[in-house]
Amino acid sequence: MTVTITAFERSPDGGKGLARDTRVRWALEEVGQPYQVRLVSFRAMKEPAHLALHPFGQIPTYEEGELALFETGAIVFHIAERWAGLLPDDANARARAITWMFAALNTVEPPILELATARILEGDKPWYAERLPLVEDRVRARLGPLSVRLGEADWLEGAFSAGDLMMVSVLLRLRSSGILDEYPNLAAYVARGEARPAYKRAFDAQRAVNTGKPPTN
Amino acid sequence: MTVTITAFERSPDGGKGLARDTRVRWALEEVGQPYQVRLVSFRAMKEPAHLALHPFGQIPTYEEGELALFETGAIVFHIAERWAGLLPDDANARARAITWMFAALNTVEPPILELATARILEGDKPWYAERLPLVEDRVRARLGPLSVRLGEADWLEGAFSAGDLMMVSVLLRLRSSGILDEYPNLAAYVARGEARPAYKRAFDAQRAVNTGKPPTN
Repeated sequence: MTVTITAFERSPDGGKGLARDTRVRWALEEVGQPYQVRLVSFRAMKEPAHLALHPFGQIPTYEEGELALFETGAIVFHIAERWAGLLPDDANARARAITWMFAALNTVEPPILELATARILEGDKPWYAERLPLVEDRVRARLGPLSVRLGEADWLEGAFSAGDLMMVSVLLRLRSSGILDEYPNLAAYVARGEARPAYKRAFDAQRAVNTGKPPTN
Repeated sequence: MTVTITAFERSPDGGKGLARDTRVRWALEEVGQPYQVRLVSFRAMKEPAHLALHPFGQIPTYEEGELALFETGAIVFHIAERWAGLLPDDANARARAITWMFAALNTVEPPILELATARILEGDKPWYAERLPLVEDRVRARLGPLSVRLGEADWLEGAFSAGDLMMVSVLLRLRSSGILDEYPNLAAYVARGEARPAYKRAFDAQRAVNTGKPPTN
């Protein structure tokens, strides 16, 4: 059955892989499921046809036969349930992997989003410079415990899972801030994620859209 | 099998039901699963015994035999998979209900958390008054489309599901801001959630911990 996702016609990051379609592409590459991409302009994202798919007028969306989903976490979870490769078979191990998906999205990502919002939407405000360290410390309050928990392990819970896919994707947004490098084991964890062939294929595919350059592999 | 969750020994909200154990209590009440509660002090939350259960040193946690989980979204999802009552049987309807869980936690809650953070941690800063409307508008940018999507329906996707449980719980945090009342259908949606007997039992149970008053029903 054909899988179709949506992505930005032109991503705000210019193809650095931070738009959320990269997370979905990565999941599909990990499970070996081909997919089609429909590009959506900023204007089309707010029009009825797209809003019927995504009530918040964002990307990505996911269509597979009669099933239409939005929200990256839900799409990645669906892919992980639908095909083998992203969740362990053992019930308790599976529940733990799912736990890390939710932890990435609801505990680690919110302060990272707040940091991105401060830079993008409040960078010209008079309070920006004084407030920035407060927001950065909220990010560190998540990264410190995460770094302790990961320790010397390659992945958060045994083998690579959808939980790692999501956590690496969330942490990637921090690279330009320099904060990630304060936690060498987390920086190495992110690098391990980026080194996966499935990630590289996903990254190259989204970059090709945004730069017009064909994939390098 | 015994289910044990953790909750604040003394919740910062004094028992208004905004601590996240209320979400887990509500889910357990909806599926009719009895549970035990272990109360944790702020100091104990950061000690090794609790950190082994919850790497970020928060509540709630969930223990069921050999399974130990943290992260509210993951716990509620586990409960919804484990017992009937919170997810539809049809595969596509189930995926849509799960979508609303993720949407509540990763699209709607982050700006609501940012608003709470501004009030709690930056209320005494010189920029607070000027910045507050910006943050409130970020909340409205989520509530507007959500209000349109809900329309006149009782619940987001057919029957009440774990997606509604999570969305109502997230929106509840807005009540004191007055913003929820700008969207009458969302305010009514939240009230419908609060009127559910399972919610009332969960609310009363957490309030009894925090006020020393026994449940009223």
